[in-house]
Amino acid sequence: MLEQHLHEDVTARGHLIDSNILSNIMNGIVELDGTFEVLSLDIGRGNENPSTITMRVFGRSREHLSEILRTIHEFGVVPVHLEDVCLQPAPADGVFPEDFYSTTNLETYIRLAGQWRHVEGTEMDLGVRVDEVTQTATGVPISDVRKGDMFVVGQTGLRVVTQERAREKTEFEFMNSTVSSEKPKAQIVKQIASILREVHGDGRKTIVVAGPAIVHTGASAHLARIVRAGYVSVLFGGNAVATHDIEVALYGTSLGIDMQSGVAVPGGNEHHLRAINRIRAAGSIGDAVDRGVLTSGLMYTLVKTGTPYVLAGSIRDDGPLPDVITDVIEAQQAMRAWCREAGACIMLSTMLHSIAVGNMLPASVTTVCVDINPAAVTKLGDRGSMQTIGIVTDVGLFLQLLADELGC
Amino acid sequence: MLEQHLHEDVTARGHLIDSNILSNIMNGIVELDGTFEVLSLDIGRGNENPSTITMRVFGRSREHLSEILRTIHEFGVVPVHLEDVCLQPAPADGVFPEDFYSTTNLETYIRLAGQWRHVEGTEMDLGVRVDEVTQTATGVPISDVRKGDMFVVGQTGLRVVTQERAREKTEFEFMNSTVSSEKPKAQIVKQIASILREVHGDGRKTIVVAGPAIVHTGASAHLARIVRAGYVSVLFGGNAVATHDIEVALYGTSLGIDMQSGVAVPGGNEHHLRAINRIRAAGSIGDAVDRGVLTSGLMYTLVKTGTPYVLAGSIRDDGPLPDVITDVIEAQQAMRAWCREAGACIMLSTMLHSIAVGNMLPASVTTVCVDINPAAVTKLGDRGSMQTIGIVTDVGLFLQLLADELGC
Amino acid sequence: MLEQHLHEDVTARGHLIDSNILSNIMNGIVELDGTFEVLSLDIGRGNENPSTITMRVFGRSREHLSEILRTIHEFGVVPVHLEDVCLQPAPADGVFPEDFYSTTNLETYIRLAGQWRHVEGTEMDLGVRVDEVTQTATGVPISDVRKGDMFVVGQTGLRVVTQERAREKTEFEFMNSTVSSEKPKAQIVKQIASILREVHGDGRKTIVVAGPAIVHTGASAHLARIVRAGYVSVLFGGNAVATHDIEVALYGTSLGIDMQSGVAVPGGNEHHLRAINRIRAAGSIGDAVDRGVLTSGLMYTLVKTGTPYVLAGSIRDDGPLPDVITDVIEAQQAMRAWCREAGACIMLSTMLHSIAVGNMLPASVTTVCVDINPAAVTKLGDRGSMQTIGIVTDVGLFLQLLADELGC
Amino acid sequence: MLEQHLHEDVTARGHLIDSNILSNIMNGIVELDGTFEVLSLDIGRGNENPSTITMRVFGRSREHLSEILRTIHEFGVVPVHLEDVCLQPAPADGVFPEDFYSTTNLETYIRLAGQWRHVEGTEMDLGVRVDEVTQTATGVPISDVRKGDMFVVGQTGLRVVTQERAREKTEFEFMNSTVSSEKPKAQIVKQIASILREVHGDGRKTIVVAGPAIVHTGASAHLARIVRAGYVSVLFGGNAVATHDIEVALYGTSLGIDMQSGVAVPGGNEHHLRAINRIRAAGSIGDAVDRGVLTSGLMYTLVKTGTPYVLAGSIRDDGPLPDVITDVIEAQQAMRAWCREAGACIMLSTMLHSIAVGNMLPASVTTVCVDINPAAVTKLGDRGSMQTIGIVTDVGLFLQLLADELGC
Repeated sequence: MLEQHLHEDVTARGHLIDSNILSNIMNGIVELDGTFEVLSLDIGRGNENPSTITMRVFGRSREHLSEILRTIHEFGVVPVHLEDVCLQPAPADGVFPEDFYSTTNLETYIRLAGQWRHVEGTEMDLGVRVDEVTQTATGVPISDVRKGDMFVVGQTGLRVVTQERAREKTEFEFMNSTVSSEKPKAQIVKQIASILREVHGDGRKTIVVAGPAIVHTGASAHLARIVRAGYVSVLFGGNAVATHDIEVALYGTSLGIDMQSGVAVPGGNEHHLRAINRIRAAGSIGDAVDRGVLTSGLMYTLVKTGTPYVLAGSIRDDGPLPDVITDVIEAQQAMRAWCREAGACIMLSTMLHSIAVGNMLPASVTTVCVDINPAAVTKLGDRGSMQTIGIVTDVGLFLQLLADELGC
Repeated sequence: MLEQHLHEDVTARGHLIDSNILSNIMNGIVELDGTFEVLSLDIGRGNENPSTITMRVFGRSREHLSEILRTIHEFGVVPVHLEDVCLQPAPADGVFPEDFYSTTNLETYIRLAGQWRHVEGTEMDLGVRVDEVTQTATGVPISDVRKGDMFVVGQTGLRVVTQERAREKTEFEFMNSTVSSEKPKAQIVKQIASILREVHGDGRKTIVVAGPAIVHTGASAHLARIVRAGYVSVLFGGNAVATHDIEVALYGTSLGIDMQSGVAVPGGNEHHLRAINRIRAAGSIGDAVDRGVLTSGLMYTLVKTGTPYVLAGSIRDDGPLPDVITDVIEAQQAMRAWCREAGACIMLSTMLHSIAVGNMLPASVTTVCVDINPAAVTKLGDRGSMQTIGIVTDVGLFLQLLADELGC
Repeated sequence: MLEQHLHEDVTARGHLIDSNILSNIMNGIVELDGTFEVLSLDIGRGNENPSTITMRVFGRSREHLSEILRTIHEFGVVPVHLEDVCLQPAPADGVFPEDFYSTTNLETYIRLAGQWRHVEGTEMDLGVRVDEVTQTATGVPISDVRKGDMFVVGQTGLRVVTQERAREKTEFEFMNSTVSSEKPKAQIVKQIASILREVHGDGRKTIVVAGPAIVHTGASAHLARIVRAGYVSVLFGGNAVATHDIEVALYGTSLGIDMQSGVAVPGGNEHHLRAINRIRAAGSIGDAVDRGVLTSGLMYTLVKTGTPYVLAGSIRDDGPLPDVITDVIEAQQAMRAWCREAGACIMLSTMLHSIAVGNMLPASVTTVCVDINPAAVTKLGDRGSMQTIGIVTDVGLFLQLLADELGC
Repeated sequence: MLEQHLHEDVTARGHLIDSNILSNIMNGIVELDGTFEVLSLDIGRGNENPSTITMRVFGRSREHLSEILRTIHEFGVVPVHLEDVCLQPAPADGVFPEDFYSTTNLETYIRLAGQWRHVEGTEMDLGVRVDEVTQTATGVPISDVRKGDMFVVGQTGLRVVTQERAREKTEFEFMNSTVSSEKPKAQIVKQIASILREVHGDGRKTIVVAGPAIVHTGASAHLARIVRAGYVSVLFGGNAVATHDIEVALYGTSLGIDMQSGVAVPGGNEHHLRAINRIRAAGSIGDAVDRGVLTSGLMYTLVKTGTPYVLAGSIRDDGPLPDVITDVIEAQQAMRAWCREAGACIMLSTMLHSIAVGNMLPASVTTVCVDINPAAVTKLGDRGSMQTIGIVTDVGLFLQLLADELGC
């Protein structure tokens, strides 16, 4: 083993033990062949008191030490001796400076002129744009970059607030358990209802992301009950969920399957296109409701209750409905504003939109992903949305029991 | 194309068109490079009247023609000119004569001394043993063969009654649709409830085959409600479903997961073995109920209501419980008797036992397979249990809604 | 049963028996409570000769009879007494006339002034626009409709050419078998290689639709070999497959996983965004190749061999790369031109793009869908792409063996 | 918070940081509402040096403190002040004393008369039987208990050796990564080949556990190559894998599917039973090889190379083959002996047998589970076989490439 002369003293504070932060820090150093010495470790007693560690981290070279510090940065570790962030201008529209700092989905602060400043817009995979006049910092997606904007580069002068698992026993304990279909389901329905009530009671917003399976399984009526009871602030979806919901309202079928008998009806495969054609003829979903063309269903309920919705286009869309935003970057922007102020997000049977929205959510948003396919739930976590509560179940029966539990 | 001089005239009768029997017969001939000529085709008008076809089938050789006739035999085709079955003695215990006739799961008749005789015990993959004194015929599994028993060989003198799809619209129309999780679920729950009520009302028996997921998901309490209401004639399962049900009763956990909170409890992974140990100490599940050791749960409910159960051993069993039949051939025999007189069979989240029971059921038994894994449902059909209604859903929520629907 | 006085005489010709066409016709009538009488049935002997049936179809009313005829239309049934198509003008831009004829993915002819005219552009869910001056007909997606364009309405004057299964034993026999992971795999690799060679030899075009899993599994290098050998006419994909391929080229990781060791590297989750930033800085993928920024990988190989690609945006894209078409309707148009002249289409591990492209392909295009998830393959068939050969396997190993088999 | 007066001083030694042992200990205490004080922490520098911690653990009561110590016991924690184990006699045959110590799959020592003694037979869910005369200890399954045998009860006097992840970078790094089908596959094949070579080179034994999918996918020929090259010490399976392998040898089909064309052959569904009948007629698989009845395939290769196999019965077996052990407890015993001396275990596409064997393997055995179904791999870990390397891939292609890589 080479001598490791270079070192930096760092510190971290929080529920270091029970949130696995301390082991993550230590492992992070060791995996990169670094070493450390614990200078002080204060372990908080009981639930109220956080722990604090100060440690000296050793590396073989300046680069090696930087790499180590960058890795443990996401666990809330900050140097004892602080520096300001470095800034560089964007070389062109839509291009970050080469060594840009890429955000996590954790609350982030930067050190500007010796002061910690909050970065507005918590979301992973953004750059941090700094307005040197107002001394403000904002997370910006690459497509919004303008030439000459100043962006944070490198790793100095940055601090993220690690998402902590509260030490106290909560009613959402299962949040951290592994994904499985073999869990007590009635309890889980109660716990999700409790999340929705709490967010609603606090006046925070709940995003529902919905895929077409909620229509095919007959669950859209139950989601409509939850909308009417006021638990949904906005619905995100694609052309399919709206089209098939309208197909049920106009023809009684979803993807050509009769919703009463569960069997395909002759000519039913054309119903979704005929439904789209009727709405296009009316002008929009809202117009179709106003003109009495559309008189039932989830989309009808959204219009009637004034609940907003964002429908994003996809390459597999027929039509699409006039309300669909066919440019995906525009659609992201329409969703992003909601994501930044959300209190909870419930994702229902749509891998595509769940990953899309997961990309835009701060880690602090309580996120529930319901899918009958375990891979859909696993993928969200793999892509960085670690806060997701995965529930492997049948969305059709789940929404029925959830609406019952909420007393809708 | 070679000349095909050899021919045999055959006939079939039934709902030939709408049950796809006619196309299966024609395809069967054509796929084997045979040809045919339709001698007469009477298509029944409306629901009440069956159709009848008589056709001449041509082959290149005696062997070719035999192969064709053997293939179309399972669609109920019989020769116009009838012959008796051929019989040969079993060469040893546990061994069929080489060219033995292997049964389907369809009702079967053999022609003995010019008379059609019903074969007792409809089940696939059996031999047909004939008692020449009493002129009776019985389906026999290979392990029950005794040296010198007379068995049907070849294909002559055999007739099976093809399972027909009734032409009339039934409430179970979805029976023939493809397996998918994306079907209207509340309707399906109603239809299964209706099947259970009908079989119960007719005084026929319902087998429930249950896997441990019904315990892990908290659904065993709902199945217990259905047992108490008298809808279950017998329960088939393995060591796991009974062990985890008893684990819940004794420790409040299933596979170490607390059923109230959904999280693992310290030391919980030992609970299933401690539960087994307690039952072994008591002598049996029934003894444990009698002595007040076991006072709740599904197994308790079975004992208290006098509902029989068959628990079959598997290579992955811990313990096992004293009630488990560890020899799998003995366990099959215990199940076989029930299968032969069943009116319906409900399979709940157990691929192993579902396929096992599917192997033993006549095609005439209404069979419902519920699993969150589509492959479990698909495999049943692939292995010949074509009559299976596959439902891809969460057994935990499904049983709760089914018990509610049945008013248990 | 009501009297069914009204009738229409219809005829169909082709491999009616072995392609299941006859049973589909008969079932279609019977399921709708219609009846029929076979006027003549000529069954072709051997492989070369088609069969012809003429039958009288009875209905209760004009509407009932129309519904029956519309249902059996897709099996190639045409009335004996022919009429011209009916036309109506589009009421507005982007809106079909209410009773528009919605296309199937089968080759279609319309009867105009007593002459059968071919409809250009075979694709499901289009309208048929007729130019009455030139007497030509074209399939048109709803978004391309212009007010006043004349479209076919109703069902008269239409004929589709049913996709037939050849009676002769082909090397692609498994095409019609059920989807399963449990099939002999080496044989399947050989058969797919044979399809690619045949299409290539005939000078027809092969579309490859690729998802990011081909990069994550290390298969993109093998696909690049197949590209270099000339078997790929165009590649369809999204932002992800191109981004992660470039991430491998620039950083040696895919979604942050090191391609040599298979483990996550520190900071690796930022690599894809840094890769996108470098390509945006260069201008486009092609520019990055020209400037020596991108020197290996699948996208590099496409650029160097002059193989075109179409990258369609999706709501979950980071970036995106400059080459991505962010408007999904524009992206569909870019793909549509290729679909209409394709000889084969190979879909690799992307449910989203596979369904999208499946929607645009004529049923006559040999379509192969490879995915480790059986649901991806099943969904294609459910949505009308019945011609799809589904292969449930690991795309990573599959492409390696396919490239070997092709001798690339 | 209540006062926690009672305490016990404990110590642990090993790679505490990078194997997550320290965080597991700390979390274990905190989750049970205990507290601790670190008395000393020596962190080893570099790869060679282990770390040592001594800590004081506080609890509210004697029972609370015991529960905490029992929970952290599995991480190798032992009290500073040592006591001997407690013993109690078994109350009846097949029944442990009530408070029996239930083993983990880690190497275990007990303290007898002040001396640490190794427990023979490492396996989870056993009791520890002590021979007080010879001062030896053995792991015993519940079914082998004899009345009056002395068993360890409670938690005192026990020590387990925690499985450590070596700090040095190994070539099997991916061992600890999450299960996913989206991993670089060629690398994984190389790494598994390397494991097989290493175990073989060391003279240790490799168990292969095989399901019937290896036959259906055509991979049994490749597994036979690996057997011939000497890499397989014993094969575990069920009736199905052997039956279908013999079906291929005798009839060219597997479950009735032709292995050349991949399509079902007429009458093919009877082949497996005819294959079983032939082997029963011959006496056994070995007899069938000797008599020239069986001349190719995996089972033939096992017989010819003298490689032993254990075939365990299951409730879904047809036949079974004469070599199948139909009593599952007997079958476990036959497998158990091999498990205790294994160096590696490769599980191929059989959830049932993989979990069964996983239950019997010490955690120190390198275990690889290959399945196309992610749930099969996940379940192994959930049931305590944490050491399992999960590979989600197509076993058919995997074995072909593995045999190539091994140069068989």
